[in-house]
Amino acid sequence: MPNVLITGTNRGIGLGLAKAYAKQPNTNVILGLRDPSGGSMPEIEVADGSKAIKVKIDSGDIPSAKKAMQELKSQGIDRLDIVIANAAIGDCFGALKEVDLGSFEEHWRINVLAPLALWQACVPLMSEGSKFVWMSSGASIMDRVPDKLDAGYGITKSSMNYLARYAHFEEPSIITFALSPGWVQTDMGDRGAKWAGMEKAPLTVEESVSGIIKVVGEATKDKYSGLHVRYDGSQSKW
Amino acid sequence: MPNVLITGTNRGIGLGLAKAYAKQPNTNVILGLRDPSGGSMPEIEVADGSKAIKVKIDSGDIPSAKKAMQELKSQGIDRLDIVIANAAIGDCFGALKEVDLGSFEEHWRINVLAPLALWQACVPLMSEGSKFVWMSSGASIMDRVPDKLDAGYGITKSSMNYLARYAHFEEPSIITFALSPGWVQTDMGDRGAKWAGMEKAPLTVEESVSGIIKVVGEATKDKYSGLHVRYDGSQSKW
Repeated sequence: MPNVLITGTNRGIGLGLAKAYAKQPNTNVILGLRDPSGGSMPEIEVADGSKAIKVKIDSGDIPSAKKAMQELKSQGIDRLDIVIANAAIGDCFGALKEVDLGSFEEHWRINVLAPLALWQACVPLMSEGSKFVWMSSGASIMDRVPDKLDAGYGITKSSMNYLARYAHFEEPSIITFALSPGWVQTDMGDRGAKWAGMEKAPLTVEESVSGIIKVVGEATKDKYSGLHVRYDGSQSKW
Repeated sequence: MPNVLITGTNRGIGLGLAKAYAKQPNTNVILGLRDPSGGSMPEIEVADGSKAIKVKIDSGDIPSAKKAMQELKSQGIDRLDIVIANAAIGDCFGALKEVDLGSFEEHWRINVLAPLALWQACVPLMSEGSKFVWMSSGASIMDRVPDKLDAGYGITKSSMNYLARYAHFEEPSIITFALSPGWVQTDMGDRGAKWAGMEKAPLTVEESVSGIIKVVGEATKDKYSGLHVRYDGSQSKW
């Protein structure tokens, strides 16, 4: 019975992923939430034999990832098969010369430091062939920088690529890669689209999520691990 | 009379660069130091008509860069021709799964946030053709990650590459690039060498510095700007 942990599942791509995995039979979907007792997580449908388990993983509270593992163990979950470090923020727009340094720092803490803390917490529970996905973005790609408007976000996602590549070489038994979900119709994606003068982002959550689940399913140490992979299985160089 | 600002000049490559620029006649070398009134900055020889001016730029004190510009203006320096964001720390070794998150964060603040604060402070004083150098490292190169031992340092230098590229596109009149000084016989370089089982780093400070000064001198908007350049003028892809 696979255990799938996803952070930031109360909306957007995280919610889409949680719904999709919960529809698979005999699967424990672990929902990493800033406030698991609050009402921000919608009810999701679970398949026969599946469960949706809420746990507190707050990207603003770095030790919460390790505490979450203790709580999962107390519920009998001592193995993680898939982890998707999805929680992130992205509203740090503007030129480098005027970007707010407090916001720039907050983006780094939520989008880079917290996923690394999650990695540290999860590794002891991950065995041969388990998968850890570092959610990245097209905004991370340095060669595409000229068409970007959000350095404070893109630089954090570039760091996710770096961490993914490092983790791949350090842990020979874990399949791990950076994943770009595409430009998706979420709060964040649509905000970026408006900033760029578009009505909304081009991709639906469902299109992105079904691609991501296929990529994660097909990933092996030889295929995708250590790389930056897009939701459709194509790869981007840094 | 060119004004050259370098941070972290009390030792290592920063000291080497300060000495070399101060030997050029009619040059103001501005020494950015954590503690300009303390004794950590050695006396350096200055050429005819040149000056060495100490100013407080503390990477651990983010507002200090802007304050330094006020102080320079009060001394009649209202233009910067070359800025080298050199100050950095590098002793965050070990595997991602066990790296100290406090140290990881401190490296990011000193090595990424502080250089961005320096950029914000300096841009108003930089006119057409002035040059801003983001000190990077071979450890920043993602395709070389498998042979690295210091993720907590390398990831900050990868971010320097990102910032340099961004800055290049944002500021059409400023020449700006990421620079790798090579693996140099400094405290930091030798510590890394020992960690890798070597006696010392392969390159002397003088070899690195003379290369860097040539690269900075030759740099134009078409040559080097927006890229990652090594001290010998060769380029690395991310």
